[in-house]
Amino acid sequence: VNNTGLHIKRLCLIGVGLIGGSLVRALRRADAVDEIVGCGRSRASLETARELGVIDHIEPDPAKAVAGADVVVIAVPLGAMQNIFTAIAPALAADTLLTDVGSAKASVVAAAKKAFGELPAGFVPGHPIAGTEKSGVQASFAELFEGRRVILTPTAQSSASAIAHTRALWQACGAEVVEMDISHHDEVLAATSHLPHMLAYSLVDMLARREDSQEIFDYAAGGFRDFSRIASSDPTMWHDITLANREALASLLEQFSMDLQKLAAAAREGDSDYLRNIFTRAKQARDRYEIKDTR
Amino acid sequence: VNNTGLHIKRLCLIGVGLIGGSLVRALRRADAVDEIVGCGRSRASLETARELGVIDHIEPDPAKAVAGADVVVIAVPLGAMQNIFTAIAPALAADTLLTDVGSAKASVVAAAKKAFGELPAGFVPGHPIAGTEKSGVQASFAELFEGRRVILTPTAQSSASAIAHTRALWQACGAEVVEMDISHHDEVLAATSHLPHMLAYSLVDMLARREDSQEIFDYAAGGFRDFSRIASSDPTMWHDITLANREALASLLEQFSMDLQKLAAAAREGDSDYLRNIFTRAKQARDRYEIKDTR
Repeated sequence: VNNTGLHIKRLCLIGVGLIGGSLVRALRRADAVDEIVGCGRSRASLETARELGVIDHIEPDPAKAVAGADVVVIAVPLGAMQNIFTAIAPALAADTLLTDVGSAKASVVAAAKKAFGELPAGFVPGHPIAGTEKSGVQASFAELFEGRRVILTPTAQSSASAIAHTRALWQACGAEVVEMDISHHDEVLAATSHLPHMLAYSLVDMLARREDSQEIFDYAAGGFRDFSRIASSDPTMWHDITLANREALASLLEQFSMDLQKLAAAAREGDSDYLRNIFTRAKQARDRYEIKDTR
Repeated sequence: VNNTGLHIKRLCLIGVGLIGGSLVRALRRADAVDEIVGCGRSRASLETARELGVIDHIEPDPAKAVAGADVVVIAVPLGAMQNIFTAIAPALAADTLLTDVGSAKASVVAAAKKAFGELPAGFVPGHPIAGTEKSGVQASFAELFEGRRVILTPTAQSSASAIAHTRALWQACGAEVVEMDISHHDEVLAATSHLPHMLAYSLVDMLARREDSQEIFDYAAGGFRDFSRIASSDPTMWHDITLANREALASLLEQFSMDLQKLAAAAREGDSDYLRNIFTRAKQARDRYEIKDTR
Protein backbone atom coordinates (compact mmCIF):
# COMPACT_ATOMS: atom_id res chain seq x y z
CA VAL A 1 0.00 0.00 0.00
CA ASN A 2 1.93 3.01 -1.25
CA ASN A 3 1.81 5.56 -4.02
CA THR A 4 3.38 3.31 -6.63
CA GLY A 5 0.90 0.50 -6.06
CA LEU A 6 3.75 -1.92 -5.36
CA HIS A 7 3.30 -4.34 -2.51
CA ILE A 8 5.74 -7.18 -1.84
CA LYS A 9 4.79 -9.80 0.75
CA ARG A 10 8.08 -11.60 0.93
CA LEU A 11 11.28 -10.36 -0.66
CA CYS A 12 14.30 -12.60 -0.84
CA LEU A 13 17.58 -10.66 -0.98
CA ILE A 14 20.57 -12.73 -2.02
CA GLY A 15 23.71 -10.73 -1.23
CA VAL A 16 23.18 -8.29 1.63
CA GLY A 17 25.74 -5.56 0.98
CA LEU A 18 25.72 -1.85 0.14
CA ILE A 19 23.38 -2.10 -2.85
CA GLY A 20 21.08 -4.89 -1.64
CA GLY A 21 20.91 -3.43 1.87
CA SER A 22 20.10 0.05 0.55
CA LEU A 23 17.42 -1.35 -1.76
CA VAL A 24 15.50 -3.11 1.01
CA ARG A 25 15.95 -0.16 3.37
CA ALA A 26 14.36 2.05 0.69
CA LEU A 27 11.53 -0.43 0.06
CA ARG A 28 10.77 -0.63 3.77
CA ARG A 29 10.76 3.15 4.04
CA ALA A 30 8.25 3.25 1.15
CA ASP A 31 6.15 0.66 3.00
CA ALA A 32 6.42 -1.52 -0.10
CA VAL A 33 7.44 -4.77 1.58
CA ASP A 34 6.23 -6.90 4.51
CA GLU A 35 9.02 -9.37 5.10
CA ILE A 36 12.63 -9.69 4.00
CA VAL A 37 14.65 -12.89 3.91
CA GLY A 38 18.40 -12.37 3.64
CA CYS A 39 20.72 -14.89 2.06
CA GLY A 40 24.50 -14.72 1.73
CA ARG A 41 27.78 -16.49 2.33
CA SER A 42 28.87 -14.56 5.42
CA ARG A 43 26.89 -15.48 8.51
CA ALA A 44 28.39 -12.53 10.42
CA SER A 45 27.29 -10.10 7.74
CA LEU A 46 23.75 -11.54 7.75
CA GLU A 47 23.61 -11.26 11.55
CA THR A 48 24.68 -7.63 11.28
CA ALA A 49 21.98 -7.02 8.68
CA ARG A 50 19.37 -8.54 10.97
CA GLU A 51 20.58 -6.50 13.96
CA LEU A 52 20.37 -3.35 11.83
CA GLY A 53 16.80 -4.26 10.89
CA VAL A 54 17.74 -4.44 7.20
CA ILE A 55 16.47 -8.04 6.95
CA ASP A 56 13.97 -9.98 9.07
CA HIS A 57 15.16 -13.56 8.60
CA ILE A 58 18.36 -15.34 7.68
CA GLU A 59 18.43 -18.28 5.29
CA PRO A 60 21.93 -19.18 4.09
CA ASP A 61 20.70 -21.70 1.49
CA PRO A 62 19.66 -19.88 -1.71
CA ALA A 63 17.22 -22.62 -2.79
CA LYS A 64 15.39 -22.44 0.57
CA ALA A 65 15.61 -18.63 0.68
CA VAL A 66 13.66 -18.14 -2.56
CA ALA A 67 10.82 -20.46 -1.46
CA GLY A 68 7.61 -18.50 -1.03
CA ALA A 69 9.14 -15.19 -2.11
CA ASP A 70 7.17 -13.09 -4.58
CA VAL A 71 10.30 -11.07 -5.39
CA VAL A 72 13.92 -12.28 -5.51
CA VAL A 73 16.75 -9.74 -5.82
CA ILE A 74 20.28 -10.98 -6.51
CA ALA A 75 22.87 -8.48 -5.32
CA VAL A 76 26.00 -10.60 -5.18
CA PRO A 77 29.30 -9.81 -6.98
CA LEU A 78 29.18 -10.69 -10.68
CA GLY A 79 31.55 -13.61 -10.15
CA ALA A 80 29.02 -15.29 -7.83
CA MET A 81 26.01 -14.94 -10.16
CA GLN A 82 26.40 -18.29 -11.91
CA ASN A 83 26.40 -20.26 -8.65
CA ILE A 84 23.36 -18.41 -7.35
CA PHE A 85 21.33 -18.90 -10.54
CA THR A 86 22.27 -22.58 -10.58
CA ALA A 87 21.26 -22.97 -6.92
CA ILE A 88 17.88 -21.24 -7.20
CA ALA A 89 16.80 -22.48 -10.66
CA PRO A 90 15.13 -25.72 -9.44
CA ALA A 91 13.42 -23.94 -6.50
CA LEU A 92 12.11 -20.74 -8.12
CA ALA A 93 8.32 -20.57 -8.57
CA ALA A 94 7.16 -19.65 -12.07
CA ASP A 95 5.44 -16.43 -11.02
CA THR A 96 8.35 -15.06 -8.97
CA LEU A 97 9.80 -11.71 -10.01
CA LEU A 98 13.58 -12.14 -10.35
CA THR A 99 15.98 -9.27 -10.79
CA ASP A 100 19.64 -8.45 -10.11
CA VAL A 101 21.85 -5.38 -9.69
CA GLY A 102 24.95 -6.43 -11.63
CA SER A 103 27.11 -3.70 -13.22
CA ALA A 104 27.49 -5.66 -16.47
CA LYS A 105 24.47 -7.34 -18.02
CA ALA A 106 25.47 -9.71 -20.84
CA SER A 107 27.40 -11.96 -18.45
CA VAL A 108 24.45 -12.07 -16.00
CA VAL A 109 22.03 -13.05 -18.75
CA ALA A 110 24.46 -15.71 -19.98
CA ALA A 111 24.73 -17.13 -16.45
CA ALA A 112 20.94 -17.22 -16.11
CA LYS A 113 20.57 -19.00 -19.47
CA LYS A 114 23.07 -21.62 -18.39
CA ALA A 115 21.15 -22.25 -15.17
CA PHE A 116 17.56 -21.99 -16.41
CA GLY A 117 17.79 -23.20 -19.98
CA GLU A 118 14.99 -20.94 -21.20
CA LEU A 119 15.02 -17.61 -19.37
CA PRO A 120 12.07 -17.17 -16.97
CA ALA A 121 9.38 -14.63 -17.94
CA GLY A 122 9.75 -13.15 -14.46
CA PHE A 123 13.46 -12.35 -14.93
CA VAL A 124 14.26 -8.67 -15.56
CA PRO A 125 17.99 -7.82 -15.30
CA GLY A 126 18.68 -4.42 -13.76
CA HIS A 127 21.50 -2.08 -12.82
CA PRO A 128 21.17 0.86 -10.42
CA ILE A 129 23.70 3.60 -11.33
CA ALA A 130 24.52 4.35 -7.74
CA GLY A 131 27.06 3.35 -5.18
CA THR A 132 29.92 4.66 -3.15
CA GLU A 133 33.50 3.47 -2.77
CA LYS A 134 32.35 1.86 0.50
CA SER A 135 30.88 -1.63 0.69
CA GLY A 136 29.00 -3.87 3.10
CA VAL A 137 25.58 -3.67 4.71
CA GLN A 138 26.92 -1.25 7.36
CA ALA A 139 27.36 1.33 4.58
CA SER A 140 23.81 0.88 3.22
CA PHE A 141 21.23 3.65 3.44
CA ALA A 142 17.69 4.13 2.18
CA GLU A 143 18.45 7.30 0.17
CA LEU A 144 21.15 5.76 -2.05
CA PHE A 145 18.93 5.55 -5.13
CA GLU A 146 17.05 8.82 -4.78
CA GLY A 147 17.22 10.70 -8.06
CA ARG A 148 19.66 8.13 -9.48
CA ARG A 149 19.05 6.19 -12.67
CA VAL A 150 18.30 2.48 -12.76
CA ILE A 151 18.79 0.75 -16.11
CA LEU A 152 16.64 -2.29 -16.84
CA THR A 153 17.78 -4.57 -19.66
CA PRO A 154 14.78 -6.87 -20.24
CA THR A 155 15.43 -10.09 -22.14
CA ALA A 156 13.28 -11.28 -25.06
CA GLN A 157 11.52 -13.55 -22.53
CA SER A 158 10.82 -10.90 -19.86
CA SER A 159 7.05 -10.43 -19.47
CA ALA A 160 5.49 -6.98 -19.64
CA SER A 161 4.14 -7.35 -16.11
CA ALA A 162 7.53 -8.41 -14.73
CA ILE A 163 9.11 -5.34 -16.35
CA ALA A 164 6.36 -3.11 -14.91
CA HIS A 165 6.84 -4.56 -11.42
CA THR A 166 10.63 -4.18 -11.51
CA ARG A 167 10.12 -0.59 -12.64
CA ALA A 168 7.72 0.02 -9.72
CA LEU A 169 10.18 -1.52 -7.28
CA TRP A 170 12.91 0.94 -8.20
CA GLN A 171 10.55 3.88 -8.45
CA ALA A 172 9.49 3.15 -4.87
CA CYS A 173 13.17 3.75 -3.97
CA GLY A 174 13.10 7.17 -5.62
CA ALA A 175 15.01 6.11 -8.74
CA GLU A 176 14.42 7.09 -12.36
CA VAL A 177 14.01 3.89 -14.38
CA VAL A 178 15.09 3.54 -18.02
CA GLU A 179 15.38 0.57 -20.35
CA MET A 180 18.33 -0.29 -22.52
CA ASP A 181 19.51 -3.03 -24.80
CA ILE A 182 21.84 -5.47 -22.98
CA SER A 183 24.96 -4.96 -25.11
CA HIS A 184 24.43 -1.21 -25.34
CA HIS A 185 24.25 -1.06 -21.54
CA ASP A 186 27.60 -2.83 -21.31
CA GLU A 187 29.19 -0.42 -23.82
CA VAL A 188 27.90 2.69 -22.06
CA LEU A 189 28.94 1.48 -18.62
CA ALA A 190 32.39 0.44 -19.85
CA ALA A 191 32.93 4.05 -20.92
CA THR A 192 31.37 5.92 -17.99
CA SER A 193 32.18 3.70 -15.04
CA HIS A 194 34.43 0.72 -15.73
CA LEU A 195 37.13 2.62 -17.65
CA PRO A 196 37.41 5.43 -15.03
CA HIS A 197 37.82 2.78 -12.32
CA MET A 198 40.60 1.09 -14.31
CA LEU A 199 42.39 4.45 -14.70
CA ALA A 200 42.15 5.28 -11.01
CA TYR A 201 43.30 1.81 -9.94
CA SER A 202 46.16 1.80 -12.48
CA LEU A 203 47.37 5.26 -11.57
CA VAL A 204 47.40 4.62 -7.83
CA ASP A 205 49.09 1.27 -8.41
CA MET A 206 51.73 2.80 -10.68
CA LEU A 207 52.53 5.44 -8.06
CA ALA A 208 52.47 2.91 -5.22
CA ARG A 209 55.05 0.73 -7.02
CA ARG A 210 57.56 3.59 -7.24
CA GLU A 211 60.52 3.65 -4.89
CA ASP A 212 59.57 7.17 -3.82
CA SER A 213 55.89 6.26 -3.35
CA GLN A 214 55.81 7.57 0.21
CA GLU A 215 56.95 10.98 -0.92
CA ILE A 216 54.68 10.87 -3.97
CA PHE A 217 51.56 10.44 -1.86
CA ASP A 218 52.81 13.11 0.55
CA TYR A 219 52.71 15.66 -2.24
CA ALA A 220 49.50 14.55 -3.92
CA ALA A 221 47.15 17.52 -3.87
CA GLY A 222 43.38 17.87 -3.66
CA GLY A 223 42.76 17.08 -7.31
CA PHE A 224 44.45 13.73 -6.84
CA ARG A 225 42.21 12.90 -3.88
CA ASP A 226 39.04 13.35 -5.94
CA PHE A 227 40.52 11.69 -9.00
CA SER A 228 41.67 8.59 -7.17
CA ARG A 229 38.79 8.11 -4.71
CA ILE A 230 37.27 5.29 -6.78
CA ALA A 231 40.53 3.34 -6.40
CA SER A 232 39.25 2.62 -2.86
CA SER A 233 36.44 0.52 -4.32
CA ASP A 234 36.17 -3.18 -3.50
CA PRO A 235 38.87 -5.08 -5.49
CA THR A 236 36.84 -8.31 -5.73
CA MET A 237 33.80 -6.52 -7.09
CA TRP A 238 35.93 -4.77 -9.70
CA HIS A 239 37.81 -7.93 -10.58
CA ASP A 240 34.42 -9.47 -11.37
CA ILE A 241 33.18 -6.45 -13.34
CA THR A 242 36.40 -6.32 -15.37
CA LEU A 243 36.08 -9.96 -16.39
CA ALA A 244 32.31 -9.76 -16.91
CA ASN A 245 32.64 -6.81 -19.30
CA ARG A 246 36.10 -7.64 -20.64
CA GLU A 247 35.47 -7.17 -24.36
CA ALA A 248 33.98 -3.68 -24.19
CA LEU A 249 36.40 -2.60 -21.49
CA ALA A 250 39.58 -3.94 -23.12
CA SER A 251 38.74 -2.14 -26.38
CA LEU A 252 38.30 1.14 -24.54
CA LEU A 253 41.52 0.63 -22.56
CA GLU A 254 43.42 0.08 -25.80
CA GLN A 255 41.85 3.13 -27.42
CA PHE A 256 42.63 5.28 -24.40
CA SER A 257 46.17 3.95 -24.27
CA MET A 258 46.67 5.15 -27.86
CA ASP A 259 45.21 8.55 -26.99
CA LEU A 260 47.79 8.88 -24.19
CA GLN A 261 50.64 8.02 -26.53
CA LYS A 262 49.46 10.73 -28.92
CA LEU A 263 49.26 13.15 -26.02
CA ALA A 264 52.79 12.25 -24.90
CA ALA A 265 54.06 12.83 -28.45
CA ALA A 266 52.25 16.17 -28.67
CA ALA A 267 53.80 17.26 -25.36
CA ARG A 268 57.32 16.25 -26.47
CA GLU A 269 56.92 17.99 -29.83
CA GLY A 270 55.41 21.10 -28.26
CA ASP A 271 52.23 20.77 -30.32
CA SER A 272 50.28 23.58 -28.65
CA ASP A 273 47.19 23.29 -30.83
CA TYR A 274 46.78 19.60 -30.09
CA LEU A 275 47.05 20.13 -26.34
CA ARG A 276 44.78 23.17 -26.28
CA ASN A 277 42.11 21.37 -28.33
CA ILE A 278 41.96 18.39 -25.98
CA PHE A 279 41.95 20.46 -22.81
CA THR A 280 39.39 22.94 -24.13
CA ARG A 281 36.98 20.30 -25.50
CA ALA A 282 37.26 18.35 -22.26
CA LYS A 283 36.61 21.38 -20.06
CA GLN A 284 33.55 22.33 -22.12
CA ALA A 285 32.13 18.80 -21.94
CA ARG A 286 32.89 18.50 -18.22
CA ASP A 287 31.31 21.88 -17.43
CA ARG A 288 28.14 20.97 -19.37
CA TYR A 289 27.99 17.66 -17.53
CA GLU A 290 28.40 19.30 -14.11
CA ILE A 291 25.54 21.72 -14.80
CA LYS A 292 23.28 18.86 -15.89
CA ASP A 293 24.24 16.50 -13.11
CA THR A 294 23.71 18.95 -10.26
CA ARG A 295 20.43 20.31 -11.58
CA VAL B 1 54.09 42.74 12.99
CA ASN B 2 52.77 39.23 13.39
CA ASN B 3 53.77 35.92 14.91
CA THR B 4 56.11 34.98 12.08
CA GLY B 5 58.06 38.22 12.27
CA LEU B 6 57.34 38.88 8.58
CA HIS B 7 56.51 42.40 7.57
CA ILE B 8 56.20 43.50 3.95
CA LYS B 9 55.87 47.20 3.20
CA ARG B 10 55.08 46.95 -0.47
CA LEU B 11 54.26 43.71 -2.23
CA CYS B 12 54.04 43.62 -6.01
CA LEU B 13 51.78 40.85 -7.29
CA ILE B 14 52.17 40.10 -11.00
CA GLY B 15 49.23 37.93 -12.07
CA VAL B 16 46.15 38.50 -9.91
CA GLY B 17 44.25 35.20 -10.17
CA LEU B 18 43.18 32.39 -7.85
CA ILE B 19 46.65 31.71 -6.43
CA GLY B 20 48.04 35.24 -6.36
CA GLY B 21 44.76 36.66 -5.05
CA SER B 22 44.53 34.04 -2.31
CA LEU B 23 48.15 34.64 -1.31
CA VAL B 24 47.72 38.38 -0.77
CA ARG B 25 44.36 37.86 0.96
CA ALA B 26 46.10 35.50 3.38
CA LEU B 27 49.00 37.91 3.95
CA ARG B 28 46.61 40.75 4.67
CA ARG B 29 44.66 38.60 7.10
CA ALA B 30 47.95 37.81 8.87
CA ASP B 31 48.68 41.54 8.96
CA ALA B 32 51.95 40.79 7.15
CA VAL B 33 51.70 43.42 4.41
CA ASP B 34 51.01 47.17 4.21
CA GLU B 35 50.44 47.81 0.52
CA ILE B 36 49.77 45.66 -2.53
CA VAL B 37 50.41 46.67 -6.13
CA GLY B 38 48.68 44.47 -8.69
CA CYS B 39 49.99 43.98 -12.19
CA GLY B 40 48.45 41.95 -15.02
CA ARG B 41 47.34 41.93 -18.62
CA SER B 42 43.61 42.22 -18.01
CA ARG B 43 42.55 45.67 -16.85
CA ALA B 44 39.06 44.36 -15.99
CA SER B 45 40.48 41.65 -13.78
CA LEU B 46 42.74 44.17 -11.99
CA GLU B 47 39.75 46.49 -11.44
CA THR B 48 37.81 43.58 -9.96
CA ALA B 49 40.74 42.77 -7.67
CA ARG B 50 40.87 46.37 -6.46
CA GLU B 51 37.11 46.46 -5.90
CA LEU B 52 37.35 43.24 -3.89
CA GLY B 53 40.12 44.83 -1.80
CA VAL B 54 42.58 42.16 -2.90
CA ILE B 55 45.02 44.80 -4.22
CA ASP B 56 45.42 48.49 -3.38
CA HIS B 57 46.90 49.85 -6.60
CA ILE B 58 46.97 48.93 -10.27
CA GLU B 59 50.14 49.17 -12.36
CA PRO B 60 49.88 47.36 -15.71
CA ASP B 61 53.58 47.83 -16.56
CA PRO B 62 55.65 45.10 -14.83
CA ALA B 63 58.84 47.20 -14.76
CA LYS B 64 57.03 50.07 -13.04
CA ALA B 65 55.08 47.72 -10.76
CA VAL B 66 58.21 46.22 -9.17
CA ALA B 67 59.74 49.63 -8.39
CA GLY B 68 59.95 50.17 -4.64
CA ALA B 69 58.56 46.73 -3.79
CA ASP B 70 60.37 44.75 -1.10
CA VAL B 71 58.62 41.55 -2.28
CA VAL B 72 57.65 40.60 -5.85
CA VAL B 73 55.43 37.55 -6.42
CA ILE B 74 54.94 36.27 -9.97
CA ALA B 75 51.70 34.31 -10.27
CA VAL B 76 51.16 34.27 -14.04
CA PRO B 77 50.68 31.12 -16.18
CA LEU B 78 53.97 29.34 -16.92
CA GLY B 79 53.83 30.43 -20.56
CA ALA B 80 53.98 34.10 -19.53
CA MET B 81 56.95 33.75 -17.14
CA GLN B 82 59.66 34.53 -19.69
CA ASN B 83 58.08 37.84 -20.72
CA ILE B 84 57.60 38.90 -17.11
CA PHE B 85 61.18 38.10 -16.11
CA THR B 86 62.48 39.92 -19.17
CA ALA B 87 60.33 42.96 -18.39
CA ILE B 88 61.29 43.24 -14.71
CA ALA B 89 64.99 42.27 -14.92
CA PRO B 90 66.29 45.79 -15.60
CA ALA B 91 64.02 47.37 -12.96
CA LEU B 92 64.36 44.97 -10.03
CA ALA B 93 66.35 46.29 -7.04
CA ALA B 94 69.12 43.98 -5.83
CA ASP B 95 67.63 43.46 -2.37
CA THR B 96 64.09 42.61 -3.57
CA LEU B 97 62.67 39.22 -2.63
CA LEU B 98 61.43 37.56 -5.83
CA THR B 99 59.35 34.41 -5.88
CA ASP B 100 56.81 32.68 -8.11
CA VAL B 101 54.07 30.05 -7.82
CA GLY B 102 54.63 28.02 -11.02
CA SER B 103 53.62 24.35 -11.03
CA ALA B 104 56.83 23.31 -12.82
CA LYS B 105 60.15 24.72 -11.66
CA ALA B 106 62.93 23.92 -14.14
CA SER B 107 61.29 25.98 -16.89
CA VAL B 108 60.81 28.95 -14.54
CA VAL B 109 64.45 28.90 -13.49
CA ALA B 110 65.51 28.64 -17.15
CA ALA B 111 63.34 31.66 -18.01
CA ALA B 112 64.84 33.64 -15.13
CA LYS B 113 68.38 32.75 -16.22
CA LYS B 114 67.64 33.95 -19.73
CA ALA B 115 66.34 37.29 -18.43
CA PHE B 116 68.79 37.96 -15.59
CA GLY B 117 71.98 36.28 -16.78
CA GLU B 118 73.13 35.40 -13.29
CA LEU B 119 70.19 34.49 -11.05
CA PRO B 120 69.50 37.10 -8.34
CA ALA B 121 70.27 36.11 -4.74
CA GLY B 122 66.77 37.28 -3.83
CA PHE B 123 65.08 34.81 -6.19
CA VAL B 124 63.50 31.75 -4.52
CA PRO B 125 61.23 29.70 -6.81
CA GLY B 126 58.18 28.28 -5.07
CA HIS B 127 55.11 26.15 -5.66
CA PRO B 128 52.06 26.03 -3.38
CA ILE B 129 50.36 22.61 -3.65
CA ALA B 130 46.90 24.07 -3.54
CA GLY B 131 44.25 25.19 -5.94
CA THR B 132 40.80 24.37 -7.17
CA GLU B 133 39.46 23.71 -10.65
CA LYS B 134 38.21 27.33 -10.58
CA SER B 135 40.31 30.25 -11.64
CA GLY B 136 40.37 34.04 -11.45
CA VAL B 137 40.59 36.52 -8.59
CA GLN B 138 36.85 36.11 -7.89
CA ALA B 139 37.58 32.54 -6.78
CA SER B 140 40.43 33.55 -4.44
CA PHE B 141 40.15 33.15 -0.68
CA ALA B 142 42.49 33.65 2.28
CA GLU B 143 42.22 30.05 3.55
CA LEU B 144 43.42 28.36 0.34
CA PHE B 145 46.87 27.54 1.70
CA GLU B 146 45.95 26.57 5.26
CA GLY B 147 47.52 23.23 6.09
CA ARG B 148 48.70 22.81 2.48
CA ARG B 149 52.30 22.25 1.48
CA VAL B 150 54.42 24.83 -0.32
CA ILE B 151 57.54 23.53 -2.02
CA LEU B 152 60.47 25.93 -2.36
CA THR B 153 63.15 25.00 -4.89
CA PRO B 154 66.01 27.39 -4.09
CA THR B 155 68.64 27.89 -6.77
CA ALA B 156 72.39 27.71 -6.11
CA GLN B 157 72.31 31.52 -6.02
CA SER B 158 69.37 31.96 -3.60
CA SER B 159 70.57 33.60 -0.37
CA ALA B 160 69.80 32.07 3.00
CA SER B 161 67.90 35.19 4.06
CA ALA B 162 65.79 35.19 0.88
CA ILE B 163 64.90 31.54 1.50
CA ALA B 164 64.01 32.31 5.13
CA HIS B 165 61.82 35.24 4.09
CA THR B 166 59.98 33.21 1.43
CA ARG B 167 59.43 30.52 4.01
CA ALA B 168 58.00 33.09 6.48
CA LEU B 169 55.73 34.51 3.77
CA TRP B 170 54.05 31.15 3.17
CA GLN B 171 53.97 30.23 6.85
CA ALA B 172 52.05 33.46 7.45
CA CYS B 173 49.43 32.00 5.07
CA GLY B 174 49.14 28.85 7.19
CA ALA B 175 51.15 26.64 4.82
CA GLU B 176 53.74 24.01 5.65
CA VAL B 177 56.93 24.85 3.78
CA VAL B 178 59.38 22.25 2.47
CA GLU B 179 62.43 22.49 0.19
CA MET B 180 63.12 20.28 -2.78
CA ASP B 181 65.61 19.97 -5.61
CA ILE B 182 64.29 21.59 -8.81
CA SER B 183 64.26 18.49 -11.03
CA HIS B 184 62.96 16.29 -8.24
CA HIS B 185 60.06 18.69 -7.76
CA ASP B 186 59.19 18.42 -11.44
CA GLU B 187 59.28 14.59 -11.29
CA VAL B 188 57.10 14.39 -8.19
CA LEU B 189 54.56 16.87 -9.53
CA ALA B 190 54.40 15.15 -12.91
CA ALA B 191 53.31 11.99 -11.10
CA THR B 192 50.93 13.43 -8.51
CA SER B 193 49.32 16.32 -10.35
CA HIS B 194 50.22 16.68 -14.01
CA LEU B 195 49.57 13.05 -15.00
CA PRO B 196 46.16 12.85 -13.24
CA HIS B 197 45.12 16.03 -15.06
CA MET B 198 46.16 14.53 -18.40
CA LEU B 199 44.12 11.39 -17.65
CA ALA B 200 41.01 13.33 -16.68
CA TYR B 201 41.26 15.64 -19.72
CA SER B 202 41.91 12.73 -22.08
CA LEU B 203 39.08 10.60 -20.73
CA VAL B 204 36.50 13.38 -20.90
CA ASP B 205 37.72 14.29 -24.38
CA MET B 206 37.54 10.68 -25.58
CA LEU B 207 33.97 10.38 -24.31
CA ALA B 208 32.99 13.79 -25.70
CA ARG B 209 34.20 12.78 -29.18
CA ARG B 210 31.92 9.72 -29.30
CA GLU B 211 28.75 9.83 -31.34
CA ASP B 212 26.75 8.77 -28.28
CA SER B 213 28.47 11.33 -26.02
CA GLN B 214 25.18 12.85 -24.89
CA GLU B 215 23.97 9.49 -23.64
CA ILE B 216 27.38 8.65 -22.19
CA PHE B 217 27.36 11.71 -19.95
CA ASP B 218 23.73 11.02 -19.03
CA TYR B 219 24.75 7.71 -17.49
CA ALA B 220 27.98 8.82 -15.87
CA ALA B 221 27.65 8.10 -12.16
CA GLY B 222 29.04 9.75 -9.06
CA GLY B 223 32.47 8.17 -9.33
CA PHE B 224 32.88 9.78 -12.74
CA ARG B 225 32.02 13.21 -11.36
CA ASP B 226 34.81 13.08 -8.78
CA PHE B 227 37.24 11.43 -11.18
CA SER B 228 36.75 13.98 -13.92
CA ARG B 229 36.41 17.17 -11.86
CA ILE B 230 39.97 18.28 -12.65
CA ALA B 231 39.09 18.24 -16.38
CA SER B 232 37.30 21.52 -15.62
CA SER B 233 40.65 23.17 -14.91
CA ASP B 234 41.86 26.09 -17.00
CA PRO B 235 43.02 24.77 -20.42
CA THR B 236 45.60 27.54 -20.95
CA MET B 237 47.19 26.98 -17.57
CA TRP B 238 47.43 23.25 -18.25
CA HIS B 239 48.72 23.76 -21.77
CA ASP B 240 51.55 25.77 -20.21
CA ILE B 241 52.21 23.21 -17.47
CA THR B 242 52.28 20.35 -19.99
CA LEU B 243 54.87 22.10 -22.13
CA ALA B 244 56.88 23.37 -19.16
CA ASN B 245 57.21 19.87 -17.69
CA ARG B 246 57.04 17.92 -20.96
CA GLU B 247 59.96 15.54 -20.43
CA ALA B 248 58.92 14.17 -17.05
CA LEU B 249 55.25 14.13 -18.03
CA ALA B 250 55.67 12.45 -21.43
CA SER B 251 57.71 9.65 -19.84
CA LEU B 252 55.00 9.00 -17.29
CA LEU B 253 52.27 9.11 -19.95
CA GLU B 254 54.14 6.51 -21.98
CA GLN B 255 54.68 4.31 -18.94
CA PHE B 256 51.03 4.57 -17.95
CA SER B 257 49.94 3.86 -21.50
CA MET B 258 51.91 0.59 -21.37
CA ASP B 259 50.34 -0.28 -18.02
CA LEU B 260 46.89 0.12 -19.58
CA GLN B 261 47.79 -2.16 -22.46
CA LYS B 262 48.91 -4.82 -19.99
CA LEU B 263 45.68 -4.36 -18.08
CA ALA B 264 43.63 -4.73 -21.28
CA ALA B 265 45.50 -7.92 -22.13
CA ALA B 266 44.96 -9.30 -18.61
CA ALA B 267 41.22 -8.56 -18.88
CA ARG B 268 40.96 -10.26 -22.28
CA GLU B 269 42.90 -13.30 -21.08
CA GLY B 270 40.95 -13.52 -17.84
CA ASP B 271 44.13 -13.17 -15.75
CA SER B 272 42.43 -12.95 -12.35
CA ASP B 273 45.63 -12.74 -10.30
CA TYR B 274 46.95 -9.81 -12.32
CA LEU B 275 43.72 -7.86 -11.93
CA ARG B 276 43.29 -8.65 -8.25
CA ASN B 277 46.89 -7.64 -7.50
CA ILE B 278 46.53 -4.24 -9.14
CA PHE B 279 43.16 -3.46 -7.59
CA THR B 280 44.18 -4.65 -4.12
CA ARG B 281 47.52 -2.80 -4.06
CA ALA B 282 45.81 0.34 -5.31
CA LYS B 283 43.04 0.18 -2.73
CA GLN B 284 45.55 -0.32 0.07
CA ALA B 285 47.68 2.62 -1.08
CA ARG B 286 44.62 4.84 -1.60
CA ASP B 287 43.17 4.00 1.81
CA ARG B 288 46.50 4.77 3.53
CA TYR B 289 46.68 8.07 1.66
CA GLU B 290 43.12 9.04 2.61
CA ILE B 291 43.82 8.42 6.29
CA LYS B 292 46.96 10.53 6.11
CA ASP B 293 45.48 13.31 4.06
CA THR B 294 42.44 13.88 6.24
CA ARG B 295 44.31 13.69 9.55
